[in-house]
Amino acid sequence: MAASRGFTDDYSPALMTDMYEYTMLNAALKDGTANRNCVFEIYTRHLPEGRRYAVLAGTGRILDALAHFHLSDDDLAFLSDNKVISKQCVKWLENFHFSGTIRGYREGEMFFPDSPILQVEGSFAECTLLETLLLSILNYDSAVASAASRMVSAAGNRPCMDMGGRRANEWAAVSAARAAVVGGFKGTANLLAAKLYGLHAIGTAAHSFTLLHDSEKEAFTSQVDALGVGTTLLTDTYDIESAVRTAVEVAGPALGGVRIDSGDLASLAQRVRNQLDALGATNTKITVTNDLDEYALAALQTAPVDSYGVGTMLVTGSGAPTCGMVYKLTERENSAGIMQPVAKKSKNKGNVPGRKLAYRSYEYNLADCEHIIAGSEDQLATYEPKEGWRNLLVDYVVDGVVNSEYQGNDAIIAAQEHRTQALCELPITAQSLMKGDPAIPTEITLL
Amino acid sequence: MAASRGFTDDYSPALMTDMYEYTMLNAALKDGTANRNCVFEIYTRHLPEGRRYAVLAGTGRILDALAHFHLSDDDLAFLSDNKVISKQCVKWLENFHFSGTIRGYREGEMFFPDSPILQVEGSFAECTLLETLLLSILNYDSAVASAASRMVSAAGNRPCMDMGGRRANEWAAVSAARAAVVGGFKGTANLLAAKLYGLHAIGTAAHSFTLLHDSEKEAFTSQVDALGVGTTLLTDTYDIESAVRTAVEVAGPALGGVRIDSGDLASLAQRVRNQLDALGATNTKITVTNDLDEYALAALQTAPVDSYGVGTMLVTGSGAPTCGMVYKLTERENSAGIMQPVAKKSKNKGNVPGRKLAYRSYEYNLADCEHIIAGSEDQLATYEPKEGWRNLLVDYVVDGVVNSEYQGNDAIIAAQEHRTQALCELPITAQSLMKGDPAIPTEITLL
Repeated sequence: MAASRGFTDDYSPALMTDMYEYTMLNAALKDGTANRNCVFEIYTRHLPEGRRYAVLAGTGRILDALAHFHLSDDDLAFLSDNKVISKQCVKWLENFHFSGTIRGYREGEMFFPDSPILQVEGSFAECTLLETLLLSILNYDSAVASAASRMVSAAGNRPCMDMGGRRANEWAAVSAARAAVVGGFKGTANLLAAKLYGLHAIGTAAHSFTLLHDSEKEAFTSQVDALGVGTTLLTDTYDIESAVRTAVEVAGPALGGVRIDSGDLASLAQRVRNQLDALGATNTKITVTNDLDEYALAALQTAPVDSYGVGTMLVTGSGAPTCGMVYKLTERENSAGIMQPVAKKSKNKGNVPGRKLAYRSYEYNLADCEHIIAGSEDQLATYEPKEGWRNLLVDYVVDGVVNSEYQGNDAIIAAQEHRTQALCELPITAQSLMKGDPAIPTEITLL
Repeated sequence: MAASRGFTDDYSPALMTDMYEYTMLNAALKDGTANRNCVFEIYTRHLPEGRRYAVLAGTGRILDALAHFHLSDDDLAFLSDNKVISKQCVKWLENFHFSGTIRGYREGEMFFPDSPILQVEGSFAECTLLETLLLSILNYDSAVASAASRMVSAAGNRPCMDMGGRRANEWAAVSAARAAVVGGFKGTANLLAAKLYGLHAIGTAAHSFTLLHDSEKEAFTSQVDALGVGTTLLTDTYDIESAVRTAVEVAGPALGGVRIDSGDLASLAQRVRNQLDALGATNTKITVTNDLDEYALAALQTAPVDSYGVGTMLVTGSGAPTCGMVYKLTERENSAGIMQPVAKKSKNKGNVPGRKLAYRSYEYNLADCEHIIAGSEDQLATYEPKEGWRNLLVDYVVDGVVNSEYQGNDAIIAAQEHRTQALCELPITAQSLMKGDPAIPTEITLL
């Protein structure tokens, strides 16, 4: 199979995993428990301190990854040579294809502590192999989408653009751009993300381009010649006021935009706006960049800024660079072939046993509670939610067949739209940047 | 060229970059400045708050990436179709190969604010294309290596193992494992990292393996059958005391180790140590895991623990998930063909113009100052450092030819050894976990 959206057969995600997944598989194959049917659940015990909600991102990437989740001969030789797995296990892995079922929250959906974000059902063997990969994807992508969502709220109607790739691992940067768009961002500087996911790519020039030329005027002239007067010129390499004058002189009043990347952005934006207006460049946009986060964006609300470029704080989750998602066995077949809820009892790290349903209830069109219903398959099959409760679970994979609705570039746009709508349905405190409790409580019912 | 160490021709690092690198290239080709010789420098303006030093990691990965830094026909079509670049630029890119020179700090070296971590010399065209990629690699890898180094110091003689992959992007996890080893870690749970970089892989079982079985005893028996009595059994799924008893019952007193993943680790380790000793399992090791960071490791010094598994806080840089490294033009050829130092003057974001030398001076075998010497090529060529100053710069790439000494798996071990030695040469305050100033001051001399 050819490479697709970041996963290749050269580097299958099957080895982007912790060794113990394979040692467990190996032991389970040997003792006969590998085929026991299991339900694993991904959830988080808590949101980052004071956050009101989090946004799920990465499920579309999981579906991409599943298509490449198989081991090459080279991978199998590596595992075998290093005594991670036995010959029996090598044989079992040769034709591995996930044949189970994955259901969970929609991409772009808000989640809270204990939300059953993803449930994976299948044999122990196939479910255990997915643990690390699923967590890696969801933990990072959701951290970025959650930060993005707060920034987008703080930015109001002004578009936010991802410029953070240089502050993240080079592949993480690609996922971050995608997750940012799920969280409401309008574009990215990252070219590979734009190419793989069909995102809007942005960017014009760095300070080095101005410094390369003998004068700022030559640099601006070159850029306008290459990109047209609609381009955005970077105005803070030397003196901003003089740069703005030169910019309008070179491009004329139809200049697309100017960018400010240092200093007191609010007061500079105000001065530059007035200067542009005085020069007749009343439609020239102002974009600002420089270590922005949601608090800085909120503080810029009254400044005459048209768009934001956000970097470091976006790709590092604005103080919460990962979610605390875990992957826990909640139900499994016993030696008699009967499904039983299970839970570990580790101190402060226990989990709610059993498979789950998840709903959000509303009062006056505003969400007021997350309802998690835990029980056996039979119990859940006959469970009747109250009227008006929104079912939060969708089927991503059924018996190994991927639901393509949630994969690909359209799914990213759908996720972005879903995030906007679902956020509007939460009490407005969700959008507060003050630390506090989750926007709605979660009620867990054990049937 | 085949895939090598994480970079492939399917996904060349050439697009893991910001769009403006290509729009600048495009404009510079059009205006004739693209071939001007340039020196770019990577440095950081400050360390994360209160950190005493940082550790450079990722240079070996840069050399791997350079080998794949070229554009496929598909990439070129993408850039061209989206009007990022012109036909002239497409043609220029068709046979792109970096032919410049890269020198910088060794992998595993300590760095401080203003340290000229990497200097890239070549035409503007080729240097600008590398900006985003170099920063992505160094910013993330160094963030992880810096955190790892603090953890390793706090852990004393007890080995630290990377178990953080699930809390980072799936590719970032692979880089993190490598960077952790540069920072002094002894192994990783991440299989792809182990395979690509020849790292020691570790890991045995998760709680799900115990829950899968009808009893803890069956799970332990299965694991010992598959992995031998030298394995490490996870003892906190239910009740730790009873699990330890069962573990020794199943494996005998030659049991390799037990792992504790929850609760008050120090007091649990003490109880478990006494229990193991009483059961005759005096050589059974205790490994602990559970949201450890350098402070937790320091607090565990007196507890009878043998090794640590570190996850989230490692791969997220323990509060500093990225370094603030930037890539700035410091010298360039002007229209008359003469090299000139340059610097932007943006508020609080200016840089020191000119190319740099870097040395560390010592008193009584302890480093006392970082010396940065800035000047023209001629000035630096005749500069004589004082006796005993250690030259911090090595040649990574000379005229496009990679110095293989700094690439590959041996370079990772060399970097780890270098980090140990270089840290020993710093004043011991470097290893303090209290917030404070950098361990040594940096003196900048403009010739």
